[in-house]
Amino acid sequence: MELYTDEYFMNEALKEAQKAFQADEVPVGAVIVANNQIIARAHNYTERLNDVTAHAEMQAITAAANYIGGKYLTNCTLYVTLEPCLMCAGALQWSHITKIVYGAHDDKKGYSKINQHVLHPKTLVTKGILEDNCSRLLKDFFALKRK
Amino acid sequence: MELYTDEYFMNEALKEAQKAFQADEVPVGAVIVANNQIIARAHNYTERLNDVTAHAEMQAITAAANYIGGKYLTNCTLYVTLEPCLMCAGALQWSHITKIVYGAHDDKKGYSKINQHVLHPKTLVTKGILEDNCSRLLKDFFALKRK
Repeated sequence: MELYTDEYFMNEALKEAQKAFQADEVPVGAVIVANNQIIARAHNYTERLNDVTAHAEMQAITAAANYIGGKYLTNCTLYVTLEPCLMCAGALQWSHITKIVYGAHDDKKGYSKINQHVLHPKTLVTKGILEDNCSRLLKDFFALKRK
Repeated sequence: MELYTDEYFMNEALKEAQKAFQADEVPVGAVIVANNQIIARAHNYTERLNDVTAHAEMQAITAAANYIGGKYLTNCTLYVTLEPCLMCAGALQWSHITKIVYGAHDDKKGYSKINQHVLHPKTLVTKGILEDNCSRLLKDFFALKRK
């Protein structure tokens, strides 16, 4: 039985999303993995920091580059609970990240709404890992907000 | 004679780009203006920080939001010497910025290569202000790099 599956790392990203939920932030979490090791963990922090750029992915990219000591994330995989937006997809393109795995689809703000190449052409993408858990957390958050 | 023209503020963004040039960074500079006052100045810092997200615009957005004490940049104008990339355009969309003024076009990485709405539909855009100066600085930088 393989320990380091996509589900394993997505579950770690979900733990980050749960921290965001508890901090009253839109619950999106991310981890970046190199050689089966988590080198960055982050969750959405836009409210606390008053900063639209503080998405989970952006912070994870910065943290991973800091860990590596270089700005390119070749041989890294990003696990993120929600499909990246255009800003994050643009950042991921610049980072030359090898692989992106996301959980829930984002029909409104997801980068795949754009019909042209947004990511680096060599970047691999896997979608829908633990999708139900990832999207349920978001739905629960917005349901609470509407109350 | 109006003092606070687009050219005036673009020239301030150019000063930031020149700082980037001197620091051996791709020379792109930005300022954010509210009520004719510069509330944020930044230049590209990707090499020094080892961080692909450290574009001039991204840092200016973060700094302006910090100055305002809120994450939305309504009633603000961004002046940037180069057409924003997709990452920065995505961040600008999230920021609800009122207006974007850019100098040089970016035929490779500029957001306008995408044929769909990338910016917030209400955001105004002015292009080509001090374009020659803005692009000359970039050309000089890359010419030096090739030597």
